Amino acid sequence: MADSTTPYPSPPGSSADRSWWGWGAVDKALSDAECAALGQLVPGAADTPLPVPDVSGLALPEVRVEPPHSLASLMSAEPLDRASHTYGKAYRDVIRALDGDLAAAPDQVARPRTERHVVDILDWAADAGVAVIPYGAGSSVVGGVECRTDLHRGVVSMDLSALDRVLEIDRVSRAARIQAGALGPGLEAQLRPHGLTLRHFPQSFEFSTLGGWLATRAGGHYATLYTHIDDLVESMRVVTPAGVNESLRLPGSGAGPSPDRLFLGSEGTLGVITEAWMRLQERPRHKASVTVLFDDVHAAMDAVRAVAQSGLHPANCRLLDPGEAGLAGVARNGESVLVLGVESAHFPVDGRMAELLTLARDHGGSPTPTETGIADTGADTWRTAFLRMPYLRDALARMSVVTETFETACTWARTPELYENLRRQLAGVVKEVTGTAGTINCRFTHVYPDGPAPYFTVIAPGRRGSEVAMWDEIKSAAMEILHDHGATVTHHHAVGRDHRPGYDRQRPEPFALALRAAKRALDPAGILNPGVLIDPAPVG
Amino acid sequence: MADSTTPYPSPPGSSADRSWWGWGAVDKALSDAECAALGQLVPGAADTPLPVPDVSGLALPEVRVEPPHSLASLMSAEPLDRASHTYGKAYRDVIRALDGDLAAAPDQVARPRTERHVVDILDWAADAGVAVIPYGAGSSVVGGVECRTDLHRGVVSMDLSALDRVLEIDRVSRAARIQAGALGPGLEAQLRPHGLTLRHFPQSFEFSTLGGWLATRAGGHYATLYTHIDDLVESMRVVTPAGVNESLRLPGSGAGPSPDRLFLGSEGTLGVITEAWMRLQERPRHKASVTVLFDDVHAAMDAVRAVAQSGLHPANCRLLDPGEAGLAGVARNGESVLVLGVESAHFPVDGRMAELLTLARDHGGSPTPTETGIADTGADTWRTAFLRMPYLRDALARMSVVTETFETACTWARTPELYENLRRQLAGVVKEVTGTAGTINCRFTHVYPDGPAPYFTVIAPGRRGSEVAMWDEIKSAAMEILHDHGATVTHHHAVGRDHRPGYDRQRPEPFALALRAAKRALDPAGILNPGVLIDPAPVG
Repeated sequence: MADSTTPYPSPPGSSADRSWWGWGAVDKALSDAECAALGQLVPGAADTPLPVPDVSGLALPEVRVEPPHSLASLMSAEPLDRASHTYGKAYRDVIRALDGDLAAAPDQVARPRTERHVVDILDWAADAGVAVIPYGAGSSVVGGVECRTDLHRGVVSMDLSALDRVLEIDRVSRAARIQAGALGPGLEAQLRPHGLTLRHFPQSFEFSTLGGWLATRAGGHYATLYTHIDDLVESMRVVTPAGVNESLRLPGSGAGPSPDRLFLGSEGTLGVITEAWMRLQERPRHKASVTVLFDDVHAAMDAVRAVAQSGLHPANCRLLDPGEAGLAGVARNGESVLVLGVESAHFPVDGRMAELLTLARDHGGSPTPTETGIADTGADTWRTAFLRMPYLRDALARMSVVTETFETACTWARTPELYENLRRQLAGVVKEVTGTAGTINCRFTHVYPDGPAPYFTVIAPGRRGSEVAMWDEIKSAAMEILHDHGATVTHHHAVGRDHRPGYDRQRPEPFALALRAAKRALDPAGILNPGVLIDPAPVG
Repeated sequence: MADSTTPYPSPPGSSADRSWWGWGAVDKALSDAECAALGQLVPGAADTPLPVPDVSGLALPEVRVEPPHSLASLMSAEPLDRASHTYGKAYRDVIRALDGDLAAAPDQVARPRTERHVVDILDWAADAGVAVIPYGAGSSVVGGVECRTDLHRGVVSMDLSALDRVLEIDRVSRAARIQAGALGPGLEAQLRPHGLTLRHFPQSFEFSTLGGWLATRAGGHYATLYTHIDDLVESMRVVTPAGVNESLRLPGSGAGPSPDRLFLGSEGTLGVITEAWMRLQERPRHKASVTVLFDDVHAAMDAVRAVAQSGLHPANCRLLDPGEAGLAGVARNGESVLVLGVESAHFPVDGRMAELLTLARDHGGSPTPTETGIADTGADTWRTAFLRMPYLRDALARMSVVTETFETACTWARTPELYENLRRQLAGVVKEVTGTAGTINCRFTHVYPDGPAPYFTVIAPGRRGSEVAMWDEIKSAAMEILHDHGATVTHHHAVGRDHRPGYDRQRPEPFALALRAAKRALDPAGILNPGVLIDPAPVG
């Protein structure tokens, strides 16, 4: 009933040439000269890039805790390991790393190679009062992998990257059992020979893991319908300090509250996800992608709403506002740009695309001439820019430019007001903090019948040495504005530690009681990712 | 941003002529003569129907608890109220009611008219150590509304049928705020003037409520995609003894584990759902329905799998095996019957139906001649029979015929074996218990890319006076077989008390710890629906 998969020699993307301080691969970072050139596009940016410090010269805090002999081979206290596991990849993480501030470094980096190792490490940590931070590939932009409490005897970053295999494939049911440490490219490489794909492509795809996606309820490839990884989960295995939680492989169930839904979004606070049966797709054979221009951004939003409520379920439905479209180079005259994509493994998609374009035209949209069923230039240009963005963000950080991205979701009825008010109010804050209006752009990354997920990018020149403080101030104001408009503090970036204030206000209090009680039941020693979602408790 | 809805005079379907002992409306129950005629179709059935007792002549247990003066106007201890709230509508409920066994009757039936009433009743009950059973319209077939413990000072059935209004409509976001006690027809009647519909049509539609659907994760109209009510929820209000839990209205979110998903499926054990913002549909303008015949049931299953994995998302995709199709009168020569339906509010559906039929033909299916885009006779015949079934079940119960329906879900790879083994093994049990092979039929009610939801019906002649014991034995064997095949004990009938043994085995133990902890946090006095999902705890 299930095939064993072919051997998979080496996990692409997990190699040692990953940046310890910034995004992704070392060799894709912008050079000093490229940083300087980029900085010139932002009036008020620094003249020269912040240097990237040599990690071997940086001061790391003393190692407070050593593993027992039985676990010693799984742990490392090497400076590069500790430094690269100190932070996620938020702007404030990058700046602090560039500043050489590694005070938050974990004492040890653990690399379990089996689920048994995960169990043993948790058992030891619970006894020893050591905090454990589950770590996939460290792409968190919300402080999700950085320990900020002093309540524990030490901190271990548990890097799951060695658990990177597709273990089993059920072709008939179109599902695979996949280890949580698998990175996007490695996971897809192992599925490809079977003609299958998970098709979950977050922006962090190359540098994030299945376990991370599950723990944070990541948003992926699909702009409609299967937007969050949640719906692609058939069952999960989670190692909690109170035992292993394995749910039944089921296509659907009405048996009590869903066990998986408690662990989806638990961000490493309730257990360590070690593997999951994931629902797969056949590789699409029919694709079409079209770019539509709109003179009026609100007409464009109405078009997107019509699409989202049409039941046509495009795989891609990405709206770029005029600023965002200009920055990405897909519109030059202040238009808003809608990128529509449809795909199918089975049937031609021309009819569906025609229906989508009817809706777009009904709202004043002008499809670009290349409606040929081949991905057009606008969509391609956008995709390249999209994957390049985190590297540009790092380059801007080195030029002391403050950049922040945050995403949200709200109902359609509230969307126009949120879009206008947020841009206006936040521009005021940016002006106050940085002395310039800066740039605030917006795109819709995912859309639902009842509302969109707007994604905002803020860019403004910072003052060298004050970048983090400025970022914090802008971030906090943005969260406040979202909350005032009934919009969520996060659609797919998770809560971590950075979104806690907004999350705590938006989370219903009885649910908070239930979550804390569940935490105490599953992690009585309070060792798992303390401070995320729930206040850290004194170690028992 | 949101319209107030038009006044809604009287909730259809909630009138007093509801059966106190059996399904639905009194005037739709079969007459004695009809019962007898029906019984003749089942060799071995009784000759005359069990009489329906006059409720006024039945012995009810003494009332152990009286409400305080402030709540007296909300409560009733009238015999008819107590009798009609004693049981749900499982076969064993109907038989026990016909036997005049009302030992489990609640002491009081409470009918809150406002959310404040719900809060006040829970406050009083927690102080007084009185169990509270949230009650929508009592259609549970799993013992979900019947108190079976003696741990409390008394039992109140909290009937939410007075909270039956659509309170607010957000047309732009296509959502409505609806009170939990609204019955299906009343809810749709209030949405219809706005051109909107929830389009959640479980078999119990006329006699079940929004709150009941949410609390039990009900399965509804859609055979694919939006199968469970879960995905139609935008936000919920739940009164827990620890406070009111109100989630934010959001189209999507990645902020921690979903609060709503803890209460969805909680079956009244964590709180009383009072209202929800529900995602609505526009009324479909384009519809097509086709019946396809298959000579081989396994080929039919393969066709259904191809449909479920095609991304075509038919609204209806109901497979009847030869026995089921024969019983429903839609096939006469041992064929399996697949009823396919597509619908759209916006675009013609002929293309999609043609693609579905291509898949069906590829697997040997023969569409019936009426592929005209008009609901064909097979589908209509089936729908009428479907809504009539619970009344027939009651009539068979009166003829001492044991009937049981149970539904499950499993992966496609396991489906053929489950289908064959369950029918064979359960036939053996039925033979042992009833002395005849009986009839065991199967249909797929909902299908997913990774597996179907098979629904089984068992019919066999029982022995008068032993019907419940025989039913229990067959039910318990069925649960065992499902468990052995990795299939869930329930796809959309919930757990209640009857499915507890199987549920407890299938629920991951760490999740059970978390759920019990959440229960203690939200319902510290242990008054809410004790015995459902979680063992009742001694009252504090």
